[in-house]
Amino acid sequence: MRLSKDLNILIVGLGLLGGSYATALKKKGFKVSAITKNEEDIDFALENGIIDEGTTELDANLIGKADLVVFALYPHIFVEWIEKNQSLFKSGAIITDVTGVKGSIVYKIQGMLRPDIEFIAAHPMAGREMSGVQNSDGVNFSDANYIVVPTDKNSHKAIELCCELGETLGFKQIAELSVESHDKMIAFLSQLTHCIAVSLMCCNNISGMEYYTGDSFRDLTRIAQINDEMWSELFLNNKDYLLYEMECFRKSFDELYDKIKEEDREGMREMMRLSTYRRKRFDKK
Amino acid sequence: MRLSKDLNILIVGLGLLGGSYATALKKKGFKVSAITKNEEDIDFALENGIIDEGTTELDANLIGKADLVVFALYPHIFVEWIEKNQSLFKSGAIITDVTGVKGSIVYKIQGMLRPDIEFIAAHPMAGREMSGVQNSDGVNFSDANYIVVPTDKNSHKAIELCCELGETLGFKQIAELSVESHDKMIAFLSQLTHCIAVSLMCCNNISGMEYYTGDSFRDLTRIAQINDEMWSELFLNNKDYLLYEMECFRKSFDELYDKIKEEDREGMREMMRLSTYRRKRFDKK
Repeated sequence: MRLSKDLNILIVGLGLLGGSYATALKKKGFKVSAITKNEEDIDFALENGIIDEGTTELDANLIGKADLVVFALYPHIFVEWIEKNQSLFKSGAIITDVTGVKGSIVYKIQGMLRPDIEFIAAHPMAGREMSGVQNSDGVNFSDANYIVVPTDKNSHKAIELCCELGETLGFKQIAELSVESHDKMIAFLSQLTHCIAVSLMCCNNISGMEYYTGDSFRDLTRIAQINDEMWSELFLNNKDYLLYEMECFRKSFDELYDKIKEEDREGMREMMRLSTYRRKRFDKK
Repeated sequence: MRLSKDLNILIVGLGLLGGSYATALKKKGFKVSAITKNEEDIDFALENGIIDEGTTELDANLIGKADLVVFALYPHIFVEWIEKNQSLFKSGAIITDVTGVKGSIVYKIQGMLRPDIEFIAAHPMAGREMSGVQNSDGVNFSDANYIVVPTDKNSHKAIELCCELGETLGFKQIAELSVESHDKMIAFLSQLTHCIAVSLMCCNNISGMEYYTGDSFRDLTRIAQINDEMWSELFLNNKDYLLYEMECFRKSFDELYDKIKEEDREGMREMMRLSTYRRKRFDKK
């Protein structure tokens, strides 16, 4: 299967990311339908031309004609949905997702899936500090990374289709990682940073701070505005890797603390030079 | 003294911040001169119309005619400069600065200063991950806070002049803090965030991370590109407050760690809801 405009693409879960996928695909001329929980989200999407059709029902016809299905649900809801409803898929359909952790879902879903359906996991590294399809036009893919996460159950064909989807959506860069590498990477790059931002906002409440702050604090805590339902699930789904990365960070933070306490200026400067050197790699080109 | 265009304004230290002050003041039609270490910085500033005159010498004439002197030097160099050269100031001159910590310099300088000279401290909360006058046009004051830090040695007149300077430079908001409140605030809002970013960059070195990262990591570590000479001095100059804030953060981070470890989902969500609620205050209007 190639990503052609004849395909019927179904989005399950029309929130921030589901909505931004729908928007991007419709703009490129694809046929996009959606199933989601709230009627108002379907109404919004239809009114704004983000989807061609949509429903809050488990519409056997809509599901049965879909060639490519993108799941943008909370991890446990995604797993439950497949358990209950996979009989409705058309034979040969390809499934993908946007879930932020992989180990806790990919093997489970690939293990239970009908043999004529293939699930290829993906993680778009994009988001906003808001949720809902109503905010999805603010999600920017053009500067973001898209990670395809295949296992040995995946075919070349499906991996390629998934990469093509990332390109079509307009991501800057498509990368491939194993389930374990992905979850370890995400524990460090994304979950740990959210833990830091949340902890920082919780540890101090001087009134009027906003009148004295600079951009460093603002940028660092941007992600402290967090969807607690989703992120607590993602953290627990990746618990071991996350705790390990938190320990590594704490060790490094304690090292800097000790150097400041001991007034080891050269030691502090060494850490700063290392961080400066390493951070350069992350500058956007 | 009011901030009028008849005043001779002298900048000592033509780096990133000194340069951005000069640029903003010249644009508004003020007379600006500069003394700095490197000839090339003076040449650059003259060629680009950022200053009217400048020198790398200790020019008694230039210093002697200045009504307002802005020091944009490292803390210990600022103190040394005053010690050695304060005899050159014109009687009645007002001195201000841009130094990031106050306790370690303000009392020292006010204590040694000639009685006919007044030092009113200020901290512009603006900067960039680059240094040098050559990069100073990228510093944006219009979105930034400017903090005036008076002591009981300061006159109303000088405090007002300093506020006026902040307004003239185009800062979004002018605030006033005591030396102690300033240093405590800065330990939390600025120094701790730099410690976190540096520690985070030092604790992990997976190769190729930049291909998988999202904006949260990029934003959080932006300030990990750090001037190690300046920041190590600022950290040590504010050691007690900084260590205290690091301990508070560490306690909060450990609390989140424990909640994840114990799978206390409601406890995690409570912290996330608190951080979300508090962070809203910092959104730019």
